[in-house]
Amino acid sequence: MLKLYSFGPAANSMKPLLTLYEKGLPFEKNRLDPAKFEHHTDWFKAINPHGQVPALVDGEHVITESTVICEYLEDEYPTEVSLRPATSYGKAQMRVWTKWVDEYFCWCVSTIGWHRYVGNMVKGLSDAEFEEKVAAIPVIEQQVKWRRAREGFPQDMLDEEMRKIAYSVERLDAHLREHEWLVPEQYTLADICNFAIANGMQVGFAELVNKEATPGLVRWIDQIKARPAVQKMYAEVELEQLGPRD
Amino acid sequence: MLKLYSFGPAANSMKPLLTLYEKGLPFEKNRLDPAKFEHHTDWFKAINPHGQVPALVDGEHVITESTVICEYLEDEYPTEVSLRPATSYGKAQMRVWTKWVDEYFCWCVSTIGWHRYVGNMVKGLSDAEFEEKVAAIPVIEQQVKWRRAREGFPQDMLDEEMRKIAYSVERLDAHLREHEWLVPEQYTLADICNFAIANGMQVGFAELVNKEATPGLVRWIDQIKARPAVQKMYAEVELEQLGPRD
Repeated sequence: MLKLYSFGPAANSMKPLLTLYEKGLPFEKNRLDPAKFEHHTDWFKAINPHGQVPALVDGEHVITESTVICEYLEDEYPTEVSLRPATSYGKAQMRVWTKWVDEYFCWCVSTIGWHRYVGNMVKGLSDAEFEEKVAAIPVIEQQVKWRRAREGFPQDMLDEEMRKIAYSVERLDAHLREHEWLVPEQYTLADICNFAIANGMQVGFAELVNKEATPGLVRWIDQIKARPAVQKMYAEVELEQLGPRD
Repeated sequence: MLKLYSFGPAANSMKPLLTLYEKGLPFEKNRLDPAKFEHHTDWFKAINPHGQVPALVDGEHVITESTVICEYLEDEYPTEVSLRPATSYGKAQMRVWTKWVDEYFCWCVSTIGWHRYVGNMVKGLSDAEFEEKVAAIPVIEQQVKWRRAREGFPQDMLDEEMRKIAYSVERLDAHLREHEWLVPEQYTLADICNFAIANGMQVGFAELVNKEATPGLVRWIDQIKARPAVQKMYAEVELEQLGPRD
C-alpha cells in the first residue's frame, strides 16, 4: 500500500493528501510532528535525506517534492478521477500555476508563517538544544530559516514578503472572479496546489482575504472546502497518530 | 508551424531550443535581443504579458515558462525521440531535477551573470533612459533585478549566490560521477534543463568547473555538446535574425 509521510492537511503536505483523497486511493497515513522535529530524525532522513515532508513511498520507490508527488499519482494511478487536463495545452496551463505556487506564492506565505509560529516554537529552547536541532537539518537553507525564526526575521524581509502575498492574493482573485477553476472548466492539480497554500488565509490574513476584497478567491476556497474528498480528508487525517507505522 | 521566441542558445531559452532540435520538430526561430530590451516591447508583451522569453506559439496557444514548454512538447508531439522516461517513477525523478534547476540552480548562476554582464549593459544609460526601460518591465521582481544590476548587487548577496553555485556544482558532479545521465539510463529533460544552465561554467566559473575538480560534470557537458542535435542547434540558431517575423 502507498505510504504518505506528511505534517497533515496544511501547506505542501496537503497537496498529495488531497490528490490521494480526490482519486480515492487508499494509503497509509504517517503524520510527523514538526514541533518534535520528527522530519529531521535519522529514521525519517533514511526515507528522505533532505528531511522534508511530504514523501510518498510506493513499493521500493520514494517520491519527494509535493508537486512531483501529485503528478506521479496521476501518471501511475490513472483513476476515473483525473486531476490533469486531457489536452497538452491544459496540462501546460496547469503547470504554470503549480510552478508559480512552488516558486513564488508558497514562499512568501511560508516566511510569515515561520515568523508567527516557528519563532515561538524554538524561542523556548536553550542555545545548546537549539544548536542540536539545527545540526540535524540536512538542507543549509532550512538551517538559515530556523536561525532566522529564532532571532526574528528582519523587518524589510517581512515587509517584502507581505507585498508578495498581497500581489499573489490579487492575482488569484482576479483570475477566480472570471473563472470557476484556475484551468478552464476543470478542477485540477493547479487548484489543489494553490488551495493548499491559500486556505486559512481568510483567518491568518483576514485583512487581505475576505468576501469584500477578494470575492473570487473566497468563493473558490469555499467551493473546494465543500468537495466530498476534502471533507473526508479533514475528517480523517487530523485523527491520525503521530510518527511512523511499520 | 511552431514559433519559438527566445534569446538563443543559452540559459532558459536553450531548454525548448534543445528539446525542439532533439525531437526534430521544425519551428520558426525568433531571436530577441536582450540588450535592446526587445522582450519588454509592446509587440512581445502582446505575446507574453510577463515580458519573458522563451515563449512558444502553437496555433492559437501561447505556452510560457521554459520547463513547461519542454513538457508541452513531449505531451503534444510524441515523436520517436522521447525525452521523458516511460515509467512514472522515472518521470518523477526527472521532475525533481527540472524543479531543482528552476528553483535553485538557475537563480544563483543568473544573479552572477547579471552582476557581470547586465550591469555594464545598463550603466551607460542616462537615468531617464534607464527609468524608461524599467517602466516597461511588467514583473516587479525583474524591475528590482535591473535596478540592482545598475547600482551593483550587495556583496553579501553575491557571496551567498557563489556559495549556492559551489554547492550546486558539487551536487551535479557527485551524481554524474556515478551516473551517465541525471535520470538512470536515459537522456531526458532533466539533462537538457540542467545543461542549459551548467554549460559555459567551464569558462565563466573555471575555478569551480574543470576536469580536476568536477570530472563527472565536465564529462556530462562534453557528452551533451557532442550530440548531433546540440551541434545542429549551435550551428543554426546563432545565425538567426533578431526580432520577430510575421
